[in-house]
Amino acid sequence: MPQRPTAAFLVIGNEILSGKVADTNTGLLARLLRKKGIALQRVVTIPDEPEVIAAEAAQLSASHDFVFTSGGVGATHDDVTMEGIARAFGTGVMHHPRFLRSLEERGLAASHRDLARVPEGAELREGRKETWPVVVMRNVWILPGLPPVFERKLEILAECLPEGPRYFADEELVPRPEEELIPLLDRVVGAYPAVQIGSYPVPAGTRITLDGDDGEAVAKASAALRKSLAES
Amino acid sequence: MPQRPTAAFLVIGNEILSGKVADTNTGLLARLLRKKGIALQRVVTIPDEPEVIAAEAAQLSASHDFVFTSGGVGATHDDVTMEGIARAFGTGVMHHPRFLRSLEERGLAASHRDLARVPEGAELREGRKETWPVVVMRNVWILPGLPPVFERKLEILAECLPEGPRYFADEELVPRPEEELIPLLDRVVGAYPAVQIGSYPVPAGTRITLDGDDGEAVAKASAALRKSLAES
Repeated sequence: MPQRPTAAFLVIGNEILSGKVADTNTGLLARLLRKKGIALQRVVTIPDEPEVIAAEAAQLSASHDFVFTSGGVGATHDDVTMEGIARAFGTGVMHHPRFLRSLEERGLAASHRDLARVPEGAELREGRKETWPVVVMRNVWILPGLPPVFERKLEILAECLPEGPRYFADEELVPRPEEELIPLLDRVVGAYPAVQIGSYPVPAGTRITLDGDDGEAVAKASAALRKSLAES
Repeated sequence: MPQRPTAAFLVIGNEILSGKVADTNTGLLARLLRKKGIALQRVVTIPDEPEVIAAEAAQLSASHDFVFTSGGVGATHDDVTMEGIARAFGTGVMHHPRFLRSLEERGLAASHRDLARVPEGAELREGRKETWPVVVMRNVWILPGLPPVFERKLEILAECLPEGPRYFADEELVPRPEEELIPLLDRVVGAYPAVQIGSYPVPAGTRITLDGDDGEAVAKASAALRKSLAES
């Protein structure tokens, strides 16, 4: 089976750490990556501080195939993501010529120029529909934090990212408390080591999830789980 | 001014990384810590894997006054948080005698015994109203992931955590696009270095937030911002 690409998500946001705004971008990105067969392994939320962004981006970039960031990419004083990512790669920030030209063509004021700041060496990735590009520095994809804009950029990711092996999943909502199911779950878990089985107490009982890279194993584990539930 | 205590939040959850469930605990904890005057500096979401939990908990514990974790504390096979935290401190997992006794007094089945598993050396913190304790290992407070249960445990944190210096905050919703405000914002930011000024594009225009440890400085910066907005 081909290797599954790995990813990390870096959320840059004082407003999230202070509880003023709830992060909703993680769910959007997680579902897209899941569909693409890319493993989201870590999400880190940090403040809008260039040196913290730099340290975290450098570490995540070295340990994952893809890093995505959210937040801090406007043209105001608190938008320090480009500077942070540039520092992560030991470089500076420049105005991207093509990006700048496209801003000028839209007749934007001089104060908007800084929207075209990118880490030196960054590339622009464009989508078929979405008109503003995503800035990509090495394996770090730099996205805006505002959820509707973040979501539009995901179209570009959907078009540009490679496809990993498909994920297989099933789930079962069992109207019984989780603790009652422990011996039964332990048997299924033991019999299907290639399947990741999750168990979550929910108001209606227990939600059991089955996930894996091997569709046949997931189907067999699901069947065994349902059989055990019917018999118990 | 007394030092502000620092905190990190470790979210343990395959279900969040796969996009199956949206994390809502971060917002709940962030708002509580804010009220207590404790600085939430980092939120990390990782999979339900003991060695990943151990490495992350060890690092966060060493670099923050408080660490809070969410998820993986039931009695099923996928509840590996206690094992992970134990490993972070080079110790094992044991059944906590008092916790176990209280489970037995409630007449819970043998399969529930593992709800009383804690890292060796952990303490139980109890609240005035909430009947189930929070397990605390050194500076790591181990909370359940299920949001309504997580929220109940926050009562115990509200009672037990120390109070840091108060945060001062103000905000202004400006019905103008963010880019127009750049020169004005830059002046206020330059004049009040002790105030953290955030600027967020929102559908209605721009949300400007002012935060700081010094109430007088925040009030002055707010007044200066409003004056500049009125004059511009």
